[in-house]
Amino acid sequence: MVTVGIIGAGRIGKVHTESICNYVRNAKIKTVADPFMNETTEHWLKSMGVENTCKDYHEILNDPEIQAVLICSSTNTHSPISLEAIAAGKHVFCEKPIDHDLTKIKQVVEALKGSGIKYQVGFNRRHDHNFAAVKQAIVDGKVGDVHIIKITSRDPEPPSAEYAAVSGGMFLDMTIHDFDMVRFLAGCDAEEIYVQSAVLVDPAIGEAGDVDTAVITLKMENGAIAVIDNSRRAAYGYDQRAEVFGSKGMVATANDTLSTAVLSNAEGVTGEKPLYFFLERYMQSFATEVKGFIHAIENDTDTLVGVEDGLKPVLMGIAAKKSVEEHRPVKLSEIVY
Amino acid sequence: MVTVGIIGAGRIGKVHTESICNYVRNAKIKTVADPFMNETTEHWLKSMGVENTCKDYHEILNDPEIQAVLICSSTNTHSPISLEAIAAGKHVFCEKPIDHDLTKIKQVVEALKGSGIKYQVGFNRRHDHNFAAVKQAIVDGKVGDVHIIKITSRDPEPPSAEYAAVSGGMFLDMTIHDFDMVRFLAGCDAEEIYVQSAVLVDPAIGEAGDVDTAVITLKMENGAIAVIDNSRRAAYGYDQRAEVFGSKGMVATANDTLSTAVLSNAEGVTGEKPLYFFLERYMQSFATEVKGFIHAIENDTDTLVGVEDGLKPVLMGIAAKKSVEEHRPVKLSEIVY
Amino acid sequence: MVTVGIIGAGRIGKVHTESICNYVRNAKIKTVADPFMNETTEHWLKSMGVENTCKDYHEILNDPEIQAVLICSSTNTHSPISLEAIAAGKHVFCEKPIDHDLTKIKQVVEALKGSGIKYQVGFNRRHDHNFAAVKQAIVDGKVGDVHIIKITSRDPEPPSAEYAAVSGGMFLDMTIHDFDMVRFLAGCDAEEIYVQSAVLVDPAIGEAGDVDTAVITLKMENGAIAVIDNSRRAAYGYDQRAEVFGSKGMVATANDTLSTAVLSNAEGVTGEKPLYFFLERYMQSFATEVKGFIHAIENDTDTLVGVEDGLKPVLMGIAAKKSVEEHRPVKLSEIVY
Amino acid sequence: MVTVGIIGAGRIGKVHTESICNYVRNAKIKTVADPFMNETTEHWLKSMGVENTCKDYHEILNDPEIQAVLICSSTNTHSPISLEAIAAGKHVFCEKPIDHDLTKIKQVVEALKGSGIKYQVGFNRRHDHNFAAVKQAIVDGKVGDVHIIKITSRDPEPPSAEYAAVSGGMFLDMTIHDFDMVRFLAGCDAEEIYVQSAVLVDPAIGEAGDVDTAVITLKMENGAIAVIDNSRRAAYGYDQRAEVFGSKGMVATANDTLSTAVLSNAEGVTGEKPLYFFLERYMQSFATEVKGFIHAIENDTDTLVGVEDGLKPVLMGIAAKKSVEEHRPVKLSEIVY
Repeated sequence: MVTVGIIGAGRIGKVHTESICNYVRNAKIKTVADPFMNETTEHWLKSMGVENTCKDYHEILNDPEIQAVLICSSTNTHSPISLEAIAAGKHVFCEKPIDHDLTKIKQVVEALKGSGIKYQVGFNRRHDHNFAAVKQAIVDGKVGDVHIIKITSRDPEPPSAEYAAVSGGMFLDMTIHDFDMVRFLAGCDAEEIYVQSAVLVDPAIGEAGDVDTAVITLKMENGAIAVIDNSRRAAYGYDQRAEVFGSKGMVATANDTLSTAVLSNAEGVTGEKPLYFFLERYMQSFATEVKGFIHAIENDTDTLVGVEDGLKPVLMGIAAKKSVEEHRPVKLSEIVY
Repeated sequence: MVTVGIIGAGRIGKVHTESICNYVRNAKIKTVADPFMNETTEHWLKSMGVENTCKDYHEILNDPEIQAVLICSSTNTHSPISLEAIAAGKHVFCEKPIDHDLTKIKQVVEALKGSGIKYQVGFNRRHDHNFAAVKQAIVDGKVGDVHIIKITSRDPEPPSAEYAAVSGGMFLDMTIHDFDMVRFLAGCDAEEIYVQSAVLVDPAIGEAGDVDTAVITLKMENGAIAVIDNSRRAAYGYDQRAEVFGSKGMVATANDTLSTAVLSNAEGVTGEKPLYFFLERYMQSFATEVKGFIHAIENDTDTLVGVEDGLKPVLMGIAAKKSVEEHRPVKLSEIVY
Repeated sequence: MVTVGIIGAGRIGKVHTESICNYVRNAKIKTVADPFMNETTEHWLKSMGVENTCKDYHEILNDPEIQAVLICSSTNTHSPISLEAIAAGKHVFCEKPIDHDLTKIKQVVEALKGSGIKYQVGFNRRHDHNFAAVKQAIVDGKVGDVHIIKITSRDPEPPSAEYAAVSGGMFLDMTIHDFDMVRFLAGCDAEEIYVQSAVLVDPAIGEAGDVDTAVITLKMENGAIAVIDNSRRAAYGYDQRAEVFGSKGMVATANDTLSTAVLSNAEGVTGEKPLYFFLERYMQSFATEVKGFIHAIENDTDTLVGVEDGLKPVLMGIAAKKSVEEHRPVKLSEIVY
Repeated sequence: MVTVGIIGAGRIGKVHTESICNYVRNAKIKTVADPFMNETTEHWLKSMGVENTCKDYHEILNDPEIQAVLICSSTNTHSPISLEAIAAGKHVFCEKPIDHDLTKIKQVVEALKGSGIKYQVGFNRRHDHNFAAVKQAIVDGKVGDVHIIKITSRDPEPPSAEYAAVSGGMFLDMTIHDFDMVRFLAGCDAEEIYVQSAVLVDPAIGEAGDVDTAVITLKMENGAIAVIDNSRRAAYGYDQRAEVFGSKGMVATANDTLSTAVLSNAEGVTGEKPLYFFLERYMQSFATEVKGFIHAIENDTDTLVGVEDGLKPVLMGIAAKKSVEEHRPVKLSEIVY
């Protein structure tokens, strides 16, 4: 049984709380900390079986009973709290991204060296049943040598322009998951990135200096070509698909739906839309990733998504931005780290 | 918060324990009773947060704190324990079937009259996401007047001949769920049943006096025709589908799978098999039905599957057996109750 | 090169004319006869390359150059013209059904004995790409022993009540194709038939003494159970599917559509309706069956759908009517022939 | 009735001969010319109803009865024969590409000016039922403003390295169809092209100076982004799909198959592979495009795929090659024409 603390009780903090309480039998949440902790949240946490709540996460870091922390606070605090948690000897599950600033990620990488600390980054989609099945097909040799990887990743609704302005941009906020997926499926790093992007969904996003539509081509180290297509708004909901084509065949996924019911009438043959957004679509993967983290602690194995896996998609995001700015393919090696 | 006791810690008792602990926040399992309670089970129950375990279910019935019981014991005990529980003033969730003996079901029906006791029968499939979507389409008028209802229900593996011999026969053991589904989707009772059946899967089942393959036609009170096809063994797994055809269109479901991944190679285009069996396929529905039971208690509403809904499929199963024996269509009104 | 004459230039006569002109390179239509032959039809026939047209089909039967005839006239003339054609030494392709009167079919059967005449009945669906693929899967052993055969056969629009009154009834007019399909897929005859039917589409059909909705259960000689569901009106178009379930697996077909295009929008994920009716859906099969007929003549082999195959579905239709009238399962052996 | 001559009796010349004889009632092939005309071909052409055959196509150009020619000869002869045919006052259907040399295409463009000659280029896929349905959905406003266009186009088998060497390269030989499709679906021209390509299928293709795998990103004039993925070898057959995503939704196609039959067994749920190659997949579109050509002649309307539509994909192919050579996005305006 691993005793954990959760730092941040916002949307994703609640997701992890619920996952651990419902599915992760060998973990126990002792404390949840959030600077804006209020009665409603406290009440809900108690009802889930959480013992303590507090406002200052240092209570968690200073609690010798707590072996591991989940960092679910705002993005800009991920790397500083990671450093503090590592210093306090806690295993760390850190939500993505570790940071937008490479220097800060580097500090985390350095702090982890020789520490024996388990560090996992919250790229939950690797644990999703559909994407995991694609990966398994590749690993089982069913696709042969990988030639082309295609990721479709479209949100149901765009963020507000305000959010877009502080999010680090679409590539670091949204595409970062797809960059991770490409690395996961290719089994190697990207060598070069080229972005063709546009503002087609909301002009305000463009005015905030960001884009909302993109097709991103990547040359992978193993010779495969990957392509990601992103939109901040799909009228039919959250579109999350992958297709991997290789020398022996292709494996592809469809979206998940609430049911398999199909209505045939005078208008056509109509099935359900994709599950609305990431909470519905990826709930199972949030539980699986935390199970994996706890397993790594209990069995002293590597985490499934290490600090390196947290760093690389940030590098890719920075390269993508550079590709847009300079309108050319950018080599990952150009991004100084 | 409703305090419940669970009688029977076999497969389905464990399913309900897990569901309640993980998903039903407003219910609390105080005690689980099983005549064969052992250390392993006790240990598992404690790990799930169950307070007490015992061998004699009377401890549960005599506990004034416990408001409701889930009867998950062997079929022949369902009706006697129901009677005792009703007498003890407990709300009752009873696994299907209430009994194979109509006289005993009648006793339960009588005991409930005017008692104020909530009684729910475990026809979980009504709560399944796919079948619920079919029902919703009908209720929403998308299918129009219902003309034809088709249920495909095939198990992945046949039961042992020993089990078949004591199960009450395929119609009362397996088809009973489909009889309930037909009533649920039609929104009315069957008037007449005709069975064409065979022993095609395992001769030992035939030697035990049962069948393993059947096509069952039903005339419903609203004029619709329903047809169920059953097999005790589908080589590709658990096949659970429904199709409802009416004046305005058709709604149909496909099987659930572990993932949407599809492999295209020189051999063909291959997706996953259906989820293996009822625990995988219907897990969500087991939780939803218990939530509904607790909701009915807390809000003093009718349960979603009442004692009448428990009785009718048994009548249909008896009529089905009679149809096989006498090789003719049998009216439900012929079954004396 | 086989020289043929076509008797009847109605809808199906035109279909065969077009098929032969476009696809059957080794057949040549010399003459088309129709009592109502008019200028429009003559003009169209000439444009297709047909040499002669006439009103009296005896011109065809008396033409020594013509080796084979296609009987596409009204149902009540099928058997008398068959007899005349056989007497004239012509090979015969006869549209379904040969007759509704068993005595008349018997005369054709007798006339063919020892005649050396090739006789084929127009059960075109055996030649359809989807149903042929199902049959092939069975023949290839992919399904194992056949346990359950399911045929869905629903028309897009009901016939007029006038037509229903003279059509011989739904079982001999519409279901007859499905009876043939069941025999084709089972690879054997039916032993017993039970019908549950209703008038749910159009009361006028009921007043004309017919039904418009039915579920028909058949016990096949090889032990398999078959079930056909029919409706005279599917709001979404022509629904033509088959499913064969056996010891090793299941093979099933979906409807054909005009394109594979699927639209995903805020309302759902919508594909096309089935092809509208039999001309669209089965055009390829009409050509294939005639190719097979010409092949049998040129190579002196058995036709693919012989006179026996024309007789048996009529027997089944008569048994089906008897099942409705007497409301009981009827053995095929009860139908005196 | 339009009298036509066909120049070239190779594979595609035979396809058009068959299409016209079988489906295009208002066209008549008077003569087929081919320098390698032999007895077998002559015999086949006669059996199809073609009157004359010859070796020298000038017989066709000099025949005053012939109103239109289909140029189905080798690629390097397309533009010179086009010029001769235009000079002879014949309407021209020219197989793709008009030429690889822009100067020669320019001569054809010039020759057509004010000539009144109908000129159509053989981009048959626009006439394919699936792609036409996608276009229709866009035209009907179902997709809204187009944001992203995705074309998957993969051959079942790579060409020989010898062929690759003289084919003009993958972009002018294979992708040219996809460039046309992108223009067709976008309803506008491309502004810029970027190619990421590789030799992953056959090293001999690389040694011949060509590529066999590519992901091509295009910025369209209307702001949409298009992406084409190509492979010279898909183990599962000919993969031809399109997906168009816009402000109101997405329309996407799947591959065509020989049947809809799906086998479910212990290994999985398996449907058929895509139709093998372009003759199987696009047969209907070859007939439809020629029907359109004849229609344009008879009704004096514009052809559906004019000389401009023949030119633009060649420009795109040249830009694609430049993008590979210079490893950067290339504007179409850079290609001097």
